[in-house]
Amino acid sequence: MQDRTFTADAEPGDHATVAGWVHEIRDLGGIAFLILRDKTGKIQVKFEKDEMDDDLVETGLGAHRESVVQVTGDVEEEERAPTGVEVTPESMQVLADADPELPLDPSGKVDADLSTRLDNRTLDARKPETKAVFEIRAEVLRAVREYFRSVGSTEINTPKIVATGTEGGTELFPVTYFGREAFMNQSPQLFKQLMVGSGLERVFEVGPIFRAEEHNTPRHLNEATMIDFESAFIDHEEAMDVCEGTLKAAYSAVEEHCQEELEILGIADEFEAPTDDFPRLTYEEAIERINATGELDEQLVWGDDLPTEGEKALGDDVGGHYFVTDWPSEIKPFYIQDYDDDPDLSKGFDLMHPRMELVSGGQREHRYDALVEGFEQQGLDPDQFEYYTKMFRYGMPPHAGWAYGVERLVMTMLDLDNIREAVLFPRDRQRLSP
Amino acid sequence: MQDRTFTADAEPGDHATVAGWVHEIRDLGGIAFLILRDKTGKIQVKFEKDEMDDDLVETGLGAHRESVVQVTGDVEEEERAPTGVEVTPESMQVLADADPELPLDPSGKVDADLSTRLDNRTLDARKPETKAVFEIRAEVLRAVREYFRSVGSTEINTPKIVATGTEGGTELFPVTYFGREAFMNQSPQLFKQLMVGSGLERVFEVGPIFRAEEHNTPRHLNEATMIDFESAFIDHEEAMDVCEGTLKAAYSAVEEHCQEELEILGIADEFEAPTDDFPRLTYEEAIERINATGELDEQLVWGDDLPTEGEKALGDDVGGHYFVTDWPSEIKPFYIQDYDDDPDLSKGFDLMHPRMELVSGGQREHRYDALVEGFEQQGLDPDQFEYYTKMFRYGMPPHAGWAYGVERLVMTMLDLDNIREAVLFPRDRQRLSP
Repeated sequence: MQDRTFTADAEPGDHATVAGWVHEIRDLGGIAFLILRDKTGKIQVKFEKDEMDDDLVETGLGAHRESVVQVTGDVEEEERAPTGVEVTPESMQVLADADPELPLDPSGKVDADLSTRLDNRTLDARKPETKAVFEIRAEVLRAVREYFRSVGSTEINTPKIVATGTEGGTELFPVTYFGREAFMNQSPQLFKQLMVGSGLERVFEVGPIFRAEEHNTPRHLNEATMIDFESAFIDHEEAMDVCEGTLKAAYSAVEEHCQEELEILGIADEFEAPTDDFPRLTYEEAIERINATGELDEQLVWGDDLPTEGEKALGDDVGGHYFVTDWPSEIKPFYIQDYDDDPDLSKGFDLMHPRMELVSGGQREHRYDALVEGFEQQGLDPDQFEYYTKMFRYGMPPHAGWAYGVERLVMTMLDLDNIREAVLFPRDRQRLSP
Repeated sequence: MQDRTFTADAEPGDHATVAGWVHEIRDLGGIAFLILRDKTGKIQVKFEKDEMDDDLVETGLGAHRESVVQVTGDVEEEERAPTGVEVTPESMQVLADADPELPLDPSGKVDADLSTRLDNRTLDARKPETKAVFEIRAEVLRAVREYFRSVGSTEINTPKIVATGTEGGTELFPVTYFGREAFMNQSPQLFKQLMVGSGLERVFEVGPIFRAEEHNTPRHLNEATMIDFESAFIDHEEAMDVCEGTLKAAYSAVEEHCQEELEILGIADEFEAPTDDFPRLTYEEAIERINATGELDEQLVWGDDLPTEGEKALGDDVGGHYFVTDWPSEIKPFYIQDYDDDPDLSKGFDLMHPRMELVSGGQREHRYDALVEGFEQQGLDPDQFEYYTKMFRYGMPPHAGWAYGVERLVMTMLDLDNIREAVLFPRDRQRLSP
């Protein structure tokens, strides 16, 4: 529709064609109002029954809620209208009639549970709150990619059908690939590492990952959109700098470009882009601080993974994003490098939001012999990963990197209750459709 | 490495640390040169054997090609050096030694066949030509996304594990999803349509698609990166406008930002971003023009799909990108809308590059009854797609859209012989690794 005017752009004095959904009809007797909604907002359409063509009145007031309509007429100032203007229709067309019974009320007047919302995402994402989440998610992706480019990182796409998973294991979805056994990739880890050894040196990817974890919690998904970064010639400290940079860029961009969406979500006032350096606690400091909070029944000892309640206690204590560094080697993946002078300590790190873990990363093992040994210690057959390990024999630079899911970032940024609110069509243990 | 200087930034007078790969060693007797290569270029490192520490000389000249090294020293002007400067090393460290036998020569002096290149992408992408292709691919994606945002389109991510394929059929890879049968999605088609019916109205996605086609040709992949667009309240003509806009934006961005890469690929002189309108031929005009070329053994008649030789003949005749519109309904997918006044004619379109088809798109069927009828005519069970069709009962606006693979765009833009040259890790009938 070349001549369509968005409702937000309709000005008094315009002769305009607006198009969108029938949000509401208010019939006051001699006069009736149809509220038309499009992606930019709403506008009032006025029907004066005695002064208008019967057919037009019938079309307007007979339209079911959520039908798609197109209205042409003069835009006039009307201070009693919700947006201060209204359209007096000359003509109206129903482009798509809606059933009178809707499975979900996009006006939000009737609450719907999450499952009903996900079954009917089309209707659900007509609600300004849902739409706002996904507009913000898109802005986050834009800002993160822009930041990556500002630090000289090249976007790559790596395969999602793979012969072997990143860490092997049972958390892989099997695929039949022309009669052969294959898997859906759980992480671009190995592929992005192969690329830091190429002339690209520094790469990022935004793409889906697949994890057959049996978890069914408000913070896990079986398919997620991962933001991956990896760079040659940097260590874990510099990798953390880039990671912090992407997060701050995402928050700043949302603060700058999504005020309207933040207002719709009711968090515009408290939303604040972080500007201070994220504290970097060693694992040892982290468990000491957790123990000092007294929130755990049992004191943590060196070697324990951080329990969810521990993360929560520490998050409350720190009050913002923070890194945990220098983890015990045994609880980090084998491809993370250990300190040469203390092999029990790894150069892995996590970035934490007070509510949950966001990022895993670290300096990688780039030395062939140590890497192959790592595979063996993990109980994996290095021969199965030869396509990967052999490149470490041809000049693999020291490198570091990390990954986080955009869903957890959006969930923590907007303080959503359930990670499924940050994905249009989530995949979990039960949900495979739509 | 906080203090690393890229070779391209090393200026005479600097005391610098450069790091990269040993590209070549030239030993002239009393003097020897090590050429160090990083992502920005190369630099000469000079070893004067009699004037330097023996250990340093041994480290420098003992390094195998493609080892990763770090060199610190003074940068000086030297007009005989390839880049006009050289480094006199004070210290040098081998960060990762390379095997003396390499499966592929990154200097490009020894040719490698495509299969060897793909088996060893890390080494292959150290070649400036390969690297240039992927830098350009990244720039294409950036430019296309920027264009999408400029026309008010929101980025979405849709699921890759699905209960049913877009068009059903046998061209789907089966996945085992927690004991249930599922598939890897062959297209975001249905999901992006569900979103044009939401408050987002206009969406795009860049993501992987999976097609179990048995093709094994230089222009087919079984996993590709698709650029998808879909918008409410537009028709196929306006969809073509946006499509043309993304392509022109991609070409212009490459022309503006990738001159160096185009020079490396030897196509900087002839590379030209299209500025004229792409011709829009109806299918009928297209077959007439193909027949008129006399290139086909048999004349095409109405209802025939365009054969590859026909596309080629027409491409030569037109001499640039062009659209083919108004296709016979029977050779377009059922979800494409037909003209109301001529149901044998569909509002589908293709965008052609002289070498091959790039884009499929069209105005979609948004009317519930016609859509369900289409499923049935296709031999598909509409009940299986109820998650999709039912949303058409709740106010689905008229809409149109299209999709193209970034690999075909890059392949035609850079005149690559094989589509596999435009993917880091291609997946085809045989290739599942790396």
